[in-house]
Amino acid sequence: MKRNFKKENLPVEKIRRYLEPGPIVLVSSAWNGRRNIMTMGWHTVMEFSPSLVGCIISSGNHSFEMVRRSAECVINLPTTALTDQVIGIGNTSGAEIDKFDHFGLTAEDAKKVKAPLISECYANFECRLADDSLVDKYNFFIWEVIKAQAALSPKYPQTLHYTGDGVFMVSGKIISRRRRFLPEML
Amino acid sequence: MKRNFKKENLPVEKIRRYLEPGPIVLVSSAWNGRRNIMTMGWHTVMEFSPSLVGCIISSGNHSFEMVRRSAECVINLPTTALTDQVIGIGNTSGAEIDKFDHFGLTAEDAKKVKAPLISECYANFECRLADDSLVDKYNFFIWEVIKAQAALSPKYPQTLHYTGDGVFMVSGKIISRRRRFLPEML
Repeated sequence: MKRNFKKENLPVEKIRRYLEPGPIVLVSSAWNGRRNIMTMGWHTVMEFSPSLVGCIISSGNHSFEMVRRSAECVINLPTTALTDQVIGIGNTSGAEIDKFDHFGLTAEDAKKVKAPLISECYANFECRLADDSLVDKYNFFIWEVIKAQAALSPKYPQTLHYTGDGVFMVSGKIISRRRRFLPEML
Repeated sequence: MKRNFKKENLPVEKIRRYLEPGPIVLVSSAWNGRRNIMTMGWHTVMEFSPSLVGCIISSGNHSFEMVRRSAECVINLPTTALTDQVIGIGNTSGAEIDKFDHFGLTAEDAKKVKAPLISECYANFECRLADDSLVDKYNFFIWEVIKAQAALSPKYPQTLHYTGDGVFMVSGKIISRRRRFLPEML
């Protein structure tokens, strides 16, 4: 089952809300007239402002040269509605199929990059390559998020968190301990 | 409520099972006769073998100089049983208190590093600094996990995933889609 979300702009320094909990994401890219999507789970927020995200995109992936040469990508946040697509995208290669067509996903024009957004995802973060100094050694890309949007509802998306071996943890209950935090530590 | 887990050795290349889902972790360190703990949520697996983990430890933290100078730390995985301690540790400074004493946690000798393990955590990953080339620019440390242990039960720990604003997502249900994966993609 796929969903279409009503989304609104999100200040780029707020993306930690969606990425820090550690969900599997879909990285979309475009280069030389082609487009692609990969499933990615090795990422971390690195800074609020500029809004930096570091991630591993292995050189074995078809997306590697596309994101490296275009110096752009979109990080898309799927929910459990896209579980089948997340797995299918992770188990196929963009060298052989167009993953948007094959998995019935909608490529939507991004605002600031040429890589397409995935409409059916809960949030879309448009990224420009900020630092490639660790790409050769570790396949580690540091992206600056330059435009972000996220769905208005539900407030907390049902995200997928990969543990390896074909097993996912699905995001569970939300607990607030806001009153126990110092204001400057929120 | 705290728990004591029966743990067994975990091959270091298997730690992705616990870190890739994106939990908040506790980083323990020792330097110059002192010890400390910090709460940390910005981390990513970077490689299976050697077992690499990248993370942000801000220079504003008391732990920063301790992990930098000792070139060691332990990444400890707390469960919801330690929610109060996780928050308390994140809202206090090791410059003022001994966090093991203050929060009633047990410092246990590690096998391969001088930094202490936190007994009450579900898993403990002993780390040696592998690459500090991005520390000055981003506070980004790349660690090699050189020894790991994890509890035998429960199979999937109830972990805390921080979204900012004092709000945590607690790990939810586990779904297996193993049969839909290509063997080499697990």
